[in-house]
Amino acid sequence: MKNLLKRYRKFQLRLSPQQNLLYGFLTYTVLGWTLLCIPFFHKQTISALDNLFIATSAISTTGLVTASVFDTYNGFGQFVVLLLFQIGGIGYMTFTSFILLSRKSPLTHWHQRVLSAEFTMPKGFEIKDFLKSVIMFTLIIEVVGALCFYIAFTQAGVDHNFAIWSSIFHSVSAFCTAGFGLYNDSFEQFAGNTSINIIISTLAICGSLGFIVVTDLWNKITRKSHQITFTTKIIFAAITLLLILGTLVIYFFEPTVVAFEENRLMASFFQSMTALTTVGFNTLPIGSFSLSALLITILLMYVGASPSGTGGGLKTTTLTALIAVIWNRIRANKQVTFFGRVIPKERLSVATSTFILYATVLFAATFLLTLTEDLTLEQILFETTSAIGTVGLSTGITGTLTFWGKVVLIFVMFVGRLGILTFGLALLARRKKITSVAAEGDLAV
Amino acid sequence: MKNLLKRYRKFQLRLSPQQNLLYGFLTYTVLGWTLLCIPFFHKQTISALDNLFIATSAISTTGLVTASVFDTYNGFGQFVVLLLFQIGGIGYMTFTSFILLSRKSPLTHWHQRVLSAEFTMPKGFEIKDFLKSVIMFTLIIEVVGALCFYIAFTQAGVDHNFAIWSSIFHSVSAFCTAGFGLYNDSFEQFAGNTSINIIISTLAICGSLGFIVVTDLWNKITRKSHQITFTTKIIFAAITLLLILGTLVIYFFEPTVVAFEENRLMASFFQSMTALTTVGFNTLPIGSFSLSALLITILLMYVGASPSGTGGGLKTTTLTALIAVIWNRIRANKQVTFFGRVIPKERLSVATSTFILYATVLFAATFLLTLTEDLTLEQILFETTSAIGTVGLSTGITGTLTFWGKVVLIFVMFVGRLGILTFGLALLARRKKITSVAAEGDLAV
Ligand SMILES: [K+]
Ligand SMILES: [K+]
Repeated sequence: MKNLLKRYRKFQLRLSPQQNLLYGFLTYTVLGWTLLCIPFFHKQTISALDNLFIATSAISTTGLVTASVFDTYNGFGQFVVLLLFQIGGIGYMTFTSFILLSRKSPLTHWHQRVLSAEFTMPKGFEIKDFLKSVIMFTLIIEVVGALCFYIAFTQAGVDHNFAIWSSIFHSVSAFCTAGFGLYNDSFEQFAGNTSINIIISTLAICGSLGFIVVTDLWNKITRKSHQITFTTKIIFAAITLLLILGTLVIYFFEPTVVAFEENRLMASFFQSMTALTTVGFNTLPIGSFSLSALLITILLMYVGASPSGTGGGLKTTTLTALIAVIWNRIRANKQVTFFGRVIPKERLSVATSTFILYATVLFAATFLLTLTEDLTLEQILFETTSAIGTVGLSTGITGTLTFWGKVVLIFVMFVGRLGILTFGLALLARRKKITSVAAEGDLAV
Repeated sequence: MKNLLKRYRKFQLRLSPQQNLLYGFLTYTVLGWTLLCIPFFHKQTISALDNLFIATSAISTTGLVTASVFDTYNGFGQFVVLLLFQIGGIGYMTFTSFILLSRKSPLTHWHQRVLSAEFTMPKGFEIKDFLKSVIMFTLIIEVVGALCFYIAFTQAGVDHNFAIWSSIFHSVSAFCTAGFGLYNDSFEQFAGNTSINIIISTLAICGSLGFIVVTDLWNKITRKSHQITFTTKIIFAAITLLLILGTLVIYFFEPTVVAFEENRLMASFFQSMTALTTVGFNTLPIGSFSLSALLITILLMYVGASPSGTGGGLKTTTLTALIAVIWNRIRANKQVTFFGRVIPKERLSVATSTFILYATVLFAATFLLTLTEDLTLEQILFETTSAIGTVGLSTGITGTLTFWGKVVLIFVMFVGRLGILTFGLALLARRKKITSVAAEGDLAV
C-alpha cells in the first residue's frame, strides 16, 4: 500500500498542475461513485449511472440529481453525499493540502503550483495562511449556519431529530454552494420563511464570495491591512449590480412571483441569489417560469460566483475583465483599463478565452441534448447552463433524461467544476511550456 | 442645394470613418423608407413601421419581411426594394466611391479610411483597383445569373414575362445575399429543381466569398500573382468544413428532409449554404424543423460569410482567429499561430471583441423579444440570429411580431450590417485615437 502511494506520488510529480487537478477530481468522483453504489447506503435501488451522476454532481457541488437524495439514500448514504460535496466545495486540493498541513510537513513546490492553478489569487497571498483561513472560515461558518438552521427549522415545525441532521446537511450544502437538499421540493415550502431565506443567502454568499474576499476583509477588520484589494472591490460591485438586475427582472416580469404578495421581493432576490452564487436551492417553481425569467436566470448562472470561492460559473471577475475589454475596444483605447487600473494582458486573454470556451461547450452540450432528449430549447439550455456553472437549478427535467443525456451532463458538470481552460490545458498543453495563469496580480480571473 | 451638399461634406470630414458609415447607412435607410412609404409603389396598404422594417431589411440585405414584398408593392415598388438591397449589397461606401471613381477624381484620404473600415483587407490591396473589380464582378455575375435564372424559370413553367423580372430580381437578391424573393414560400416550390439550387448557391457563394477572395483568385488566374493569399486559403477551408458539417447534421438529424428522397442531400446542402452565406432563401419548411436542425442553422448563421463580401455574420475569418486563440491558449503557446503563421495581436483582439459583442447583442435582443412576444425560445433565438447575421431565414414569425418586437429587430438588422464594433466605435470612440482595424495584414477579420 505504501509502495503504491509512493508510485502514485512519483506519477503526480511528472504531471502538470492542470493534469493533477483533472486526475484528482476524477479520483474523488470514482471513489464517491464506488461508495454510493454500495447497497448498504440505499433505501431503494438506484442505477449505476444515476449513482455516477449524483457522485459527479456532489463532487462538482452542482446539485442536479436524477433521483431524490432523501428517498434513495439512507442516513449513511446521505452522509456520503455530504462528504462528497464538502470535499468538492473546499476543493480537493485544499483538502489534500490540509492533510499535508496538519502533518506539519511543509507544502512542496508542486502543491503550491497546483493550488495556484485552482485558486487564482492576487500576489501577496501566502498559500499556508490561505489554507488555514479556508479551513477555519469553513468550519466556523458551517457550525454557525447549522445552529441558525436548527432554530429556524424547529420554529417552522420540523421534527426535532430530523432538524438536527437537516441543519447540518443544509448548512454544509449552502456554504459549499452544493444545493443538495433533503426536501424533494428544495426550499419551495420555505419560500415565505424569512429566517431560512436569510440563512441560506448568507451561507451561499459567504461561500461564493471566495476565500480571497473573506481573507481580504478579515485582514481589513483585524487591521493587518488598511485597504481592501482591487479584486475585492470589483467582486462586491459586480455581485451587487447583478443581484439588483436579477431581482428587478424577476420581480417585474415573472408572473409566478405575484402570488407571493408581501414576500415577492424576497422570493425574487432569492432566485437571483441562488443563480449567481450557484448554490442552486430554489423557493420558486422554475418549471413554470416565463421565458424572460428563465433567460435572466441563465445569464446569472452563466456569470456565476467569484474566483476561489465554492461557487462555479464564468466568475464575476471574468465578466468584469470582459466588460473592460469591450469598453476599451469601443473607446479605441490602447491599454485596457478599469477604474483607472491597467489590467494585465494575460488576465484579459484568460478571460476572453474562458468566455469563448464556455460558450462553445454550452452550445455543444445543448446541441447534443437536442439530439438525445425530446424537450424545449429553454429546458435544455437552462439545464446545460446550470450544469456548466455547477448551479443545480432545473426546470425539472433531470430525472427524465435519457442515458446519453445523463452522460452529457455528467461530462459538463465535471468540466464546469474543473474549469474548461484547466481541462483543456490538462489534456493538450505542451510540456514545460505551462504558463502560470495567475501571474501578474491585480485582478484575479 | 449645392451649398447644402458642401456643408454636408464638411460635416462628414469632421467624423470618424465609423461615424461616417453609421450616418451613411442611416441616410440610405431613411431615404429607402421614405420611398417605400409613397402610395404610388403599393398594391395594398402597409404601415409605416412595416415599410421601415422592409427598408432596413433591404439596405442591410437581411431579407426578413413583415409583409410579402410581392403582395404589397407593385413592380415599381419591387424595383425600389431591389435598388435598396443592391446598394446595401455592394455597400453604400463602395457605391458612393464608385460615383467618385466614375467622375475620375482621385479618392480622398478620407474615403480610403472609410473604405478600410468597411472592408477589412490584407495589405497590398489598392482601393481603386479593388472598387473596379467589385463593380465589374457584380455586374458580370448578376447578368449571367439572371440569364441562367431565366432559362431555369421558363423551363420550370414560370410565365415568360414574369420570368424576366423574376430572374433579374432573384439574381441580384442572391448575389447580394439579400434573400428577398417574389415568391411567398421563398424557393420551397423549387426544392427539387437542381438548376435553380445550383444557380442560387453559386450566386450566393460568389457574393458571400467576398471581393478579396475573388480579386485574389482573379490575380492568380490572370497570373498577376503566383500564390493565393493566406486569408483566401483560410476562407475556403472554413467554408468547406462548415458546409459539410451543416449538410451532414441536417441530412441525418432533420426529419423533414426525408420526404425529399433523392433530393435529400441537395436540400440539406442548400439549407447549410443559405445560412452560412447569409443569403436567406429557403427550400425547406424551417417552421417545422427539429431543434437540432434549428441549432445547427443558428450556428451557421452566427458564423456567417467572409469579410468584405455581401454576406453578414461574425465572419469565417473571425471564427478562424477565435479557434486559433483557443487552440494556442490550451496548448499554452505564447504566440498565437495558425498553420505556422503568427496572427497579429490586434486582429485577435478584434475577433474576440466581436464575438463577445455579438453574443451580448444576441442575448439582449432575445431577452427583449421574450418580453414583447409570446413565442418559444427557439423561434426567438432563430429570428434574432437571422437578423444580426443579416440572413433573413425565419421560422415564420416575422409577420406576427408586435410593434416593439419589430423595433428590436430593425435595430438588430441595422447593427448587424454595420458591424457591432463599428457601431460601438461610431458612438463611443474617443476623437483622434481611432486605430485602424485593418492594420497589420495577414488575416483579415
Ligand atoms: K450548486
Ligand atoms: K440575407
